[in-house]
Amino acid sequence: MKIRLKFFLLMTFVVFFAFSANSFPSKKIVQEYREKHERQILKEFMELLSIPNVSSDKKNIQKNAEFIKTMMEKRGIETRIMETKGNPVVFGELNNPQATQTYMFYVHYDGQPVDPEEWTDTQPFEPVLRPGKLIPGTHKPRPIPFPDPSKKIKEDWRIYARGSSDDRAPIIGLLTAVEALQNAGVPLKNLKFIMEGEEEAGSPHLEPFLKKHQDLLRCDVLFMCDGPAYYSGDPTLFFGARGITSMEITVYGPNTSVHSGHYGNWAPNPAVRLSHLLASMRDTDGRVKIKGYYDSVIPLTKAEKEALESIPSYEEEIKKNYGFSQPEQNWDSLLEAIQYPALNVNGIQSGWVGDQARTIIPPSATAHLDIRMVKGNEPEEMRQKVIHHIKEQGYKVVSRAPDKKTRMKYNKIARVVESEKGYKAYKTPMDSPLAQNVIQGLQEHTGEKPVLLPSLGGSLPIYLFHETLGIPIIGIPIANHDNNQHQPDENLRIGHLWTGIETYAAIIMREQE
Amino acid sequence: MKIRLKFFLLMTFVVFFAFSANSFPSKKIVQEYREKHERQILKEFMELLSIPNVSSDKKNIQKNAEFIKTMMEKRGIETRIMETKGNPVVFGELNNPQATQTYMFYVHYDGQPVDPEEWTDTQPFEPVLRPGKLIPGTHKPRPIPFPDPSKKIKEDWRIYARGSSDDRAPIIGLLTAVEALQNAGVPLKNLKFIMEGEEEAGSPHLEPFLKKHQDLLRCDVLFMCDGPAYYSGDPTLFFGARGITSMEITVYGPNTSVHSGHYGNWAPNPAVRLSHLLASMRDTDGRVKIKGYYDSVIPLTKAEKEALESIPSYEEEIKKNYGFSQPEQNWDSLLEAIQYPALNVNGIQSGWVGDQARTIIPPSATAHLDIRMVKGNEPEEMRQKVIHHIKEQGYKVVSRAPDKKTRMKYNKIARVVESEKGYKAYKTPMDSPLAQNVIQGLQEHTGEKPVLLPSLGGSLPIYLFHETLGIPIIGIPIANHDNNQHQPDENLRIGHLWTGIETYAAIIMREQE
Repeated sequence: MKIRLKFFLLMTFVVFFAFSANSFPSKKIVQEYREKHERQILKEFMELLSIPNVSSDKKNIQKNAEFIKTMMEKRGIETRIMETKGNPVVFGELNNPQATQTYMFYVHYDGQPVDPEEWTDTQPFEPVLRPGKLIPGTHKPRPIPFPDPSKKIKEDWRIYARGSSDDRAPIIGLLTAVEALQNAGVPLKNLKFIMEGEEEAGSPHLEPFLKKHQDLLRCDVLFMCDGPAYYSGDPTLFFGARGITSMEITVYGPNTSVHSGHYGNWAPNPAVRLSHLLASMRDTDGRVKIKGYYDSVIPLTKAEKEALESIPSYEEEIKKNYGFSQPEQNWDSLLEAIQYPALNVNGIQSGWVGDQARTIIPPSATAHLDIRMVKGNEPEEMRQKVIHHIKEQGYKVVSRAPDKKTRMKYNKIARVVESEKGYKAYKTPMDSPLAQNVIQGLQEHTGEKPVLLPSLGGSLPIYLFHETLGIPIIGIPIANHDNNQHQPDENLRIGHLWTGIETYAAIIMREQE
Repeated sequence: MKIRLKFFLLMTFVVFFAFSANSFPSKKIVQEYREKHERQILKEFMELLSIPNVSSDKKNIQKNAEFIKTMMEKRGIETRIMETKGNPVVFGELNNPQATQTYMFYVHYDGQPVDPEEWTDTQPFEPVLRPGKLIPGTHKPRPIPFPDPSKKIKEDWRIYARGSSDDRAPIIGLLTAVEALQNAGVPLKNLKFIMEGEEEAGSPHLEPFLKKHQDLLRCDVLFMCDGPAYYSGDPTLFFGARGITSMEITVYGPNTSVHSGHYGNWAPNPAVRLSHLLASMRDTDGRVKIKGYYDSVIPLTKAEKEALESIPSYEEEIKKNYGFSQPEQNWDSLLEAIQYPALNVNGIQSGWVGDQARTIIPPSATAHLDIRMVKGNEPEEMRQKVIHHIKEQGYKVVSRAPDKKTRMKYNKIARVVESEKGYKAYKTPMDSPLAQNVIQGLQEHTGEKPVLLPSLGGSLPIYLFHETLGIPIIGIPIANHDNNQHQPDENLRIGHLWTGIETYAAIIMREQE
C-alpha cells in the first residue's frame, strides 16, 4: 500500500508540473463565465435564501423544493419533486450520451432552526451581503446594498442568511458549474442530484426513500456536498464523516426547589450530582473515562495517517478565531482528535443563574450530550456504554420522570432519554481505485492539490447511502470553515463559492479517456 | 452549665404539671377572641396580601407601609413610616406604664420576586384559601370562596399568596395578639415594632437606619418574627440564624458556540470544566472539599448540643414530603447539618437542553453558589476560600468577562462575581438569663414546652441588630415549614397562624412579678 501511495504522490507531481495554469480549460472556462455572470449568480442564490427552510416549516419547505426544481430545469436537468412521509426530495438527472460514468450529488436544502433575536441586525431569511466577516463586539461590517455593476464583487464579501453555507451553497455552486460548462460546450458526465429536505431534523425518511428508489439512484459514486472546506480554502475532499447520537440525562434532588438555608447540607443537590456524574465521564482534556469507550474504534489506515500528516495545521488560526489559548490535550492535533469518538456536553441546566438566581436547592439538573462516533462505533452500543457508566455510579436509570414510589426507593436516580437516535460513521478507503481516480481528476482539472481528509469531524448520514445503494461516497465541502454553521449569523464567503464552482466543474467534466 | 440545664429541665416539668390547661389565661383569652373574630382576622390579612410587595416595586411597597400603619394604629400603636435611602421602615410603639421590660419585634413586609406563570392556577397577589395543601401533580385542593359565617374555618386550610408566610404572617399574628389581650384587659409589656421593606433585597439600608435610630430602638430583647416554626408545629424559639453570601462563577470555552462535530474532542468544553470545578469543591454528601472551609466554625456549646438532641426528628416526614429517599450523609441529622457552613449550588447553566438542545460546544458555563455560614465564619473569608480553591484548580480568576488578550494568555479562566455580599451568622447563648427568662415565660403562659433551636438553617440579618443595638436577639417563627418560602405557591397554614397568635400573646403579656 505504501508503494501505491508513493506512486500516487509521484504522479501528482508529474501531473502538476506537466500542465501550466491555462492548460486547465475547465477552470478557465468556469472563471470566465462566473466573472461575467456573478451578479446573476448571487441574485438567484439570494432569492433561494429568502425562502425560510426550517424542516418543520412545511409550507416553505415546499416552496424551496419548487424553487430548486425551477433552477434545475433552467439548466436542462430533468427534475421531479418526490414525496416522502416527511419533506420532499428534489431529484434531477442530466444524461450525456458519451459519458461512461454516473456521478450523483447529495445536498440538503433544509436548515437548522433559527432564533432571529440572536442574529446581528439582520433576519435569517433576509439575506444580506457584508463586506467582510462579522465578529460581534469587534468587527461589524455593515450590510451593503446589492451592488450595481460598477462595483466589483469581492471574494472576502459574505452572504449572511440561514442555509447560506449549510447547505444551500452547493445548490447554486453545482448548478452554476453545470451551466458554465454547458455554455462552453464542455461534455459532462452523467449526473444525478438528490436534494433532501430534512437533514437537520435527522433525516427520518431518507432510508425508506433510498430503499424504494435504488434503481433510480444507481451511480458510480455519490458526492456529499455539505460541510466546510478545509481552513486553507483549497478544494477539499473528505472520505468519511463521524456518526452521531445524542441523549439527555436528568438527575434528581427534592421534588421541588427547597430553601438552601433550611436544607443546605442535607437535601440532595442535583446540580452537584450532575457535576460529579459528568466529571466521572470525561476529563477536561477530551479523554472519555467511560469503560470501553474506545474499544470498537477501527484504527486509522496507513493512507489515512499519511494524509493527516500532509495537511497543514491551522490550529493557531482557529484558536485565535475562537479565542482560546489551549485546546483539549488528549489528542495530538485537531485533525487527529476528530478521528476518534467524542463525548460532548452540549448544555447543562439546573435552577437559575444571573438575575434570576435564587438561593435554593433545585429539584433536578439536566445535561444534553452528543456522541460523535467513528468507524466501528454503533450508536446503540455507545449509548449503552454511557448508560452502563451511569449505573456504575450508583444511579437507578429510568426513562421517565420518577414517580413518588421510585423516588422513595432509590437514592440516586437518572433519567436518560435518547434525544436523537442518530447514525454511525462512514469511511471510503482513500486508497481505493475510485477514490484515487476522483482525486486525480480533480487535480488535473484544477491544477491544484486538494486537501484530503480521511473523515470530517461533523456528522452526515453517509452510511445510509452506502448501505442502501452499495456505492462509495466522497465529500466535496465548499463552505468557509467560519460559516457559523448551526448558529446565528450563518454566512458564506463569496470566494469560497467561486472556488466551489470550479471544484464542482472539475468533478463533473466528462472523463477524457 | 450542665447542672443549670438540668435544673431548667426539671423546672419545666414542675411548671408543666403545676398548671392545668385553663390555668393559662392568655392562651384561653386569645383562643376565645380569635374564634369569635377569625373571619375578620383573615379578611384583614387577605387585604394586606393583595398588595404586591416585591422590594423593587416602590409604589406598592409604599402602599404596604401605609396599610400596615393603619393596621397598627387601629390597635393604638403609635406608628410612623420612616424613610431610608431604600424602602421605608414602619415603626411602632405601644407603651404600658407598669411594664419594666421593652420587647421589640422585627418583621419584614417585602417578599421575594414572583413569576406568576409558575403559580398553580392563582396569582401571587390575589390571595386564595385552599382547603388543604397543594401538591402539584398529586393533590390540588380547589380555592374556596371566602367562607360565609355558617362554615367553620379549619386549621388545615391554607392561604396562598406571596408573603402569606414570609413574612407578612407575623404582622397579622402580632397585631391580633395585641388586640386580643387589650380586649380582655390583660396588661402588656412595652412593645416596639420595626417592619423592614427590603429584607428580600438583602437589607441594603438597614444598618444605617439602625445606627441612626439607636435611641428609638432601645429595648431589652429583639424578637425576629420570620422563618418557619419547627416541623412539629409547636411554638418555636430560635437563638440564631446562619449567615449568607453568594457568588457566581463562569468558566469559558470558545468565544462562541462551535459545532460539536468539527471541534468535539478539541475545543475546550466549559460545561465539562464547570462540572469538574464544582465536583472538586464538594462531594455529593455535602462535605465541602475546599481547604479550610470548616476552620473558623465555632463549635456548638453543650447547651446547644443538648437542645439539638432533645428535639424530635421529622426527617422521615420531610424526606417523604420532598420525595427523596436519602439525604446528604456528611452530617448525622438535618438539625446538625444546619449548624455547619454549607456550599449550595443554586443553579447551573450552559448551552441548551431539552427542545432547545443544539449539538454544539457552548462558549461558557455558569454556576450560582450560596454559602450559608455559621458563627465564626466571615463572608469575605469564606468567599476568598472558594476563590483560592478555584485558583488552585489552575484557573485565572477575573471579575469581568475576559477580553481577547486574557483569553489568549490563560488556558483556564473563571469569572467570579459576588452576587450578594450578605452577612454573617448570629447566635444568642441559649443558657443566658435573658434566654432562660423568655423560654420560661412562653412555657408558663402557653403550658407547652417550646422547641428550642440553637440556629435556623436559613439566614436573617440578625447580627446587624446585635452589633448596632447591642441587644440579644431571639426568633419566634410561626409559619408552617412547608410554606413554599421563596417559591411559587407560597402559603400559610391557618392552624399555624392561630398558634402563632397564642405564642406572640404569651410573649407580650406583662411579666407578673
